[in-house]
Amino acid sequence: MTINRLQHLSQTLTAAGLDAVVLNPGSTLTYLTGLHFHLMERPVLMVFAPGQEPVFILPTLEKLKLEQLPYPAQAYPYGENPAEWAAVFGAALASLGLEKAKIGMEPRALRLLEYGYLQTAAPAATFSDASPSLSALRICKDEQEITLMRRAVQIAQNALLATLPLVKIGMTERELASELVIQLFRHGSDPELPFAPIVSAGENSANPHASPSSRKLRPGDLLVIDWGAAYGGYISDLTRTFALGEVDAEYAHIHHIVQQANAAGRAAGKPGSPCAAVDIAARQVIEQAGYGAYFTHRTGHGIGMEGHEDPYMRADNQDVLQVGMAYTVEPGIYLPGRNGVRIEDDMVITPAGAESLSDLPREIRVLG
Amino acid sequence: MTINRLQHLSQTLTAAGLDAVVLNPGSTLTYLTGLHFHLMERPVLMVFAPGQEPVFILPTLEKLKLEQLPYPAQAYPYGENPAEWAAVFGAALASLGLEKAKIGMEPRALRLLEYGYLQTAAPAATFSDASPSLSALRICKDEQEITLMRRAVQIAQNALLATLPLVKIGMTERELASELVIQLFRHGSDPELPFAPIVSAGENSANPHASPSSRKLRPGDLLVIDWGAAYGGYISDLTRTFALGEVDAEYAHIHHIVQQANAAGRAAGKPGSPCAAVDIAARQVIEQAGYGAYFTHRTGHGIGMEGHEDPYMRADNQDVLQVGMAYTVEPGIYLPGRNGVRIEDDMVITPAGAESLSDLPREIRVLG
Repeated sequence: MTINRLQHLSQTLTAAGLDAVVLNPGSTLTYLTGLHFHLMERPVLMVFAPGQEPVFILPTLEKLKLEQLPYPAQAYPYGENPAEWAAVFGAALASLGLEKAKIGMEPRALRLLEYGYLQTAAPAATFSDASPSLSALRICKDEQEITLMRRAVQIAQNALLATLPLVKIGMTERELASELVIQLFRHGSDPELPFAPIVSAGENSANPHASPSSRKLRPGDLLVIDWGAAYGGYISDLTRTFALGEVDAEYAHIHHIVQQANAAGRAAGKPGSPCAAVDIAARQVIEQAGYGAYFTHRTGHGIGMEGHEDPYMRADNQDVLQVGMAYTVEPGIYLPGRNGVRIEDDMVITPAGAESLSDLPREIRVLG
Repeated sequence: MTINRLQHLSQTLTAAGLDAVVLNPGSTLTYLTGLHFHLMERPVLMVFAPGQEPVFILPTLEKLKLEQLPYPAQAYPYGENPAEWAAVFGAALASLGLEKAKIGMEPRALRLLEYGYLQTAAPAATFSDASPSLSALRICKDEQEITLMRRAVQIAQNALLATLPLVKIGMTERELASELVIQLFRHGSDPELPFAPIVSAGENSANPHASPSSRKLRPGDLLVIDWGAAYGGYISDLTRTFALGEVDAEYAHIHHIVQQANAAGRAAGKPGSPCAAVDIAARQVIEQAGYGAYFTHRTGHGIGMEGHEDPYMRADNQDVLQVGMAYTVEPGIYLPGRNGVRIEDDMVITPAGAESLSDLPREIRVLG
């Protein structure tokens, strides 16, 4: 399958008028190779020019990994002394005849570290953003990918269900986050989680990107849990909001609105509709309830190998949904300094509409 | 303390002839702000010019985090539509008068994403590598930092001790890695591990950077476990090698050599010595035993907030060790296709020499 992906990449590059592409560690590289490399102080780069074997510039001690590749490749390994690396980059690019080439890259992934070596190796080459072409390669998930995502969702759901009985008034956000992480691994998540869970209570729940803190869970808090698992390199990303004991009537009210907004957003996805339709459907529910100013982010983002990838569910995004696209629907209402609510599901576009891979109850549940 | 760090940064930039520095999410940013931002599709950038308040370019929904800063700062928040971001970068740089400035950056951290916006915002500015200056800011750990690292080592050691009784012949590398991760969190690691543990058995242990696989543990294997914890943002990074039942005499022999090399490397660190001395001391033991060709990597790397940072223990590195520098000593012997050994400790330079923060037994231990 990885070989087919490389053929597809060749066509994509040719269509984009590019002679080659450079990829450093990240999802695109893993998608095309099946290999996992870490982003570190030592650059790792795949250079691919259609019609030639892929070239890998990498530390000598990473070279063994290339044996797992399903196609032949050329290795340009380098030793520990950075003074020698520029020459290796030069030899690698020269071997492909890329001295004056048009080379595509991913600005979201490529660092000035790799770029510096590339520019030195091929000062007459031009580098341009190939993200749209590369993103298009993997924006529609195939059945095998969706099976892995479905499993990542199940693991996350099972982990949360195993964690909820442990929620106690007086424990800290951090303690609860730690329990949830343990359950994610107990239930079969890959060793690298897609992100550290968000566990935020009370005023912290009003910060969409809070980190678990030493704040204790208190009666009357809303409790936002935003978590996910990884399986076979694919991820899930879910959010549910709970009540700790009896909460203020307004908090129960905004939970109800967000639940309706989530349902509207989930229902709005179908092949041929713009991404904007999903955002607008969810946002309208919140705006009509008078809380539009407190829904401060887009309705969702693509998911797959990455926590955030194309397509993005924004009111200004006219990109059209297609069968196999996967994305979150995660409306929220955040009352600064008070409490917040978010409800997030993982969707995939089917011929008939959009299916939610996640099915944990969305109604407000009282814990503690 | 973070305020002192910012003052120190001002002096460093001035000494380096730089008008400002730009930092994206990563350890340097966290060191200077106490804040954690994620590297994602939305750029986050701190721009600091000595004598002026730091400026943060960031998504609106991340703005709340700035309230935790111990010093005043200017926020340039942006919305969800990327088409609007360039103008926000422009306004931020203009507010600091950086249109034609000499701006420092970190090539290891800064991506072409942020760099592209910066170049558009200030086409007449020049950007240069400020890594040496920025690295120098935090290369010597203070007492508080060492206390956190000590705790990260303790958590890792306790987690391994709790995991070893679970090692069974027939379980997979991945299953064992998962148990170890669970124990790391049970024993108090931060929610984000410094790296996914390496658990590699038999021929996989001969690959220094193996990922845990579905390979089962078998009698006669060497088993390499390379793992670490995080605590308060500081990390540990340890390795021990075990025997599964009775192993080939050569494997026990190379374990003994690596143990001696580790001891020599640990003993070689002291204030005023070059980093090279640590590498040479460990390497000589392995070379003299006839296995020099099978020790394929440097002896160690700096540790602190990052898994790999300055200073690096390489034979060509004449940088001088100073009190408070922290680094790994991790010699290894890897017999391709057969088995490998690595033994790694976390060191800190003291006035009297070098102290190992880790003290788990290094002798070969039989499991399973």
